[in-house]
Amino acid sequence: MPNLTAAMLVIGDEILSGRTRDSNMHHLAGELARRGIDLREVRIVADDHFAIVEALNALRAVWDQVFTSGGIGPTHDDITADAVAAAFGVRIEVNAQARAILAARYESMGTEFNEARLRMARMPEGATLIENPVSGAPGFSIGNVHVMAGVPAVFEAMAASVLSGIIGGVSLLSQALIILRPEGEIAGPLSTLARDFPDLAMGSYPFVRNGVFGAQVVIRGTDGARVDAAMLRLAALFPQAGE
Amino acid sequence: MPNLTAAMLVIGDEILSGRTRDSNMHHLAGELARRGIDLREVRIVADDHFAIVEALNALRAVWDQVFTSGGIGPTHDDITADAVAAAFGVRIEVNAQARAILAARYESMGTEFNEARLRMARMPEGATLIENPVSGAPGFSIGNVHVMAGVPAVFEAMAASVLSGIIGGVSLLSQALIILRPEGEIAGPLSTLARDFPDLAMGSYPFVRNGVFGAQVVIRGTDGARVDAAMLRLAALFPQAGE
Repeated sequence: MPNLTAAMLVIGDEILSGRTRDSNMHHLAGELARRGIDLREVRIVADDHFAIVEALNALRAVWDQVFTSGGIGPTHDDITADAVAAAFGVRIEVNAQARAILAARYESMGTEFNEARLRMARMPEGATLIENPVSGAPGFSIGNVHVMAGVPAVFEAMAASVLSGIIGGVSLLSQALIILRPEGEIAGPLSTLARDFPDLAMGSYPFVRNGVFGAQVVIRGTDGARVDAAMLRLAALFPQAGE
Repeated sequence: MPNLTAAMLVIGDEILSGRTRDSNMHHLAGELARRGIDLREVRIVADDHFAIVEALNALRAVWDQVFTSGGIGPTHDDITADAVAAAFGVRIEVNAQARAILAARYESMGTEFNEARLRMARMPEGATLIENPVSGAPGFSIGNVHVMAGVPAVFEAMAASVLSGIIGGVSLLSQALIILRPEGEIAGPLSTLARDFPDLAMGSYPFVRNGVFGAQVVIRGTDGARVDAAMLRLAALFPQAGE
């Protein structure tokens, strides 16, 4: 059975303007890899209704699972729930369960449950809740789309909750070797090795450190013995790399 | 005249697998903002020919300038140049100028100019070079697409070179105010403020720090006096925020 595929949609002017450096994508990528789910595409769009609708419809049609981050708070620029409803062609409504969770939380805190906060209970018809143990206001899933907050602590908690309910595929195993030679000398032998192991994925990630050129060569596959065999061949090709 | 728009295409299995945290996007976002060019969309795709072709054609049709990172080295997984040629429907060829640059560089280093390294001179017909002061092998531009390396030091040098040739729009001015209140209390007044200043963009970026809920409210616009006026109103609405 092939692995599940996934995509992520990051919604946020603050990422595109360079003001904030995204961390949610990197977090999710690691969590998905650990579970054997292949993250295949990420898109980052502005807080713009049509941009969100278009990107979401493109991604959810192609990949098994889609994760979004950002735009589900109480302020006027939080337009993700409306855009998701539009993408699915369903009405947006105040979700009774979400409203009850928020009402209980604000009551226990002695805080007013005002109109802005009620906005956070607005969800597409048919959505199911994603628990938010950090700040209360839940995310939601609809179809194969999981809508989560942009604040990293909240995003990570919601991602853990969603991922516990998704069965992953076979974990991808990987091994890496750092080779302190310019990539131009690694390329030829690596290409031959890749042809000899068509069942494995081999990537070369070059770097420059203190003026020294090198590359980290990563070999990935689902069969550990094959990954081991290829890695042994690679190490033999570049014997000085073991240092 | 409206600002130039831009998009970025990040090509890299290593980002999607969570192994590497992207820094090129964050760097480019900041550089574009400083020049008044609006970064409107980012896509991250795997080292996959059709994924690159499709994403590139979608982005270059919609946005004024497209920047790519990754996949232009000498190894077998460096397939960006071929994909860009396919996207533009032109042949790929050994660029004579790029070949001369590489030949001179390897000769001066006393290094063999082998077949793998020659790969880095392969570019779509009609491409012009982007200088690479860090490691020699040039990037290239074709149409409104600028193809750069994935290694951050090289990407940043190439971006500086490309951006010096692109005339930006009017710089966007921004001011930010940190308000130590839950976003649910900020939302109502901020929404009214946004309606009173339709020419400005107002964003609220919530955070939780040591259990305290707050938000950074950012007001952006091209007219400094208007941004100042809105910021004064905001500060008056949340007087405790000045601390």
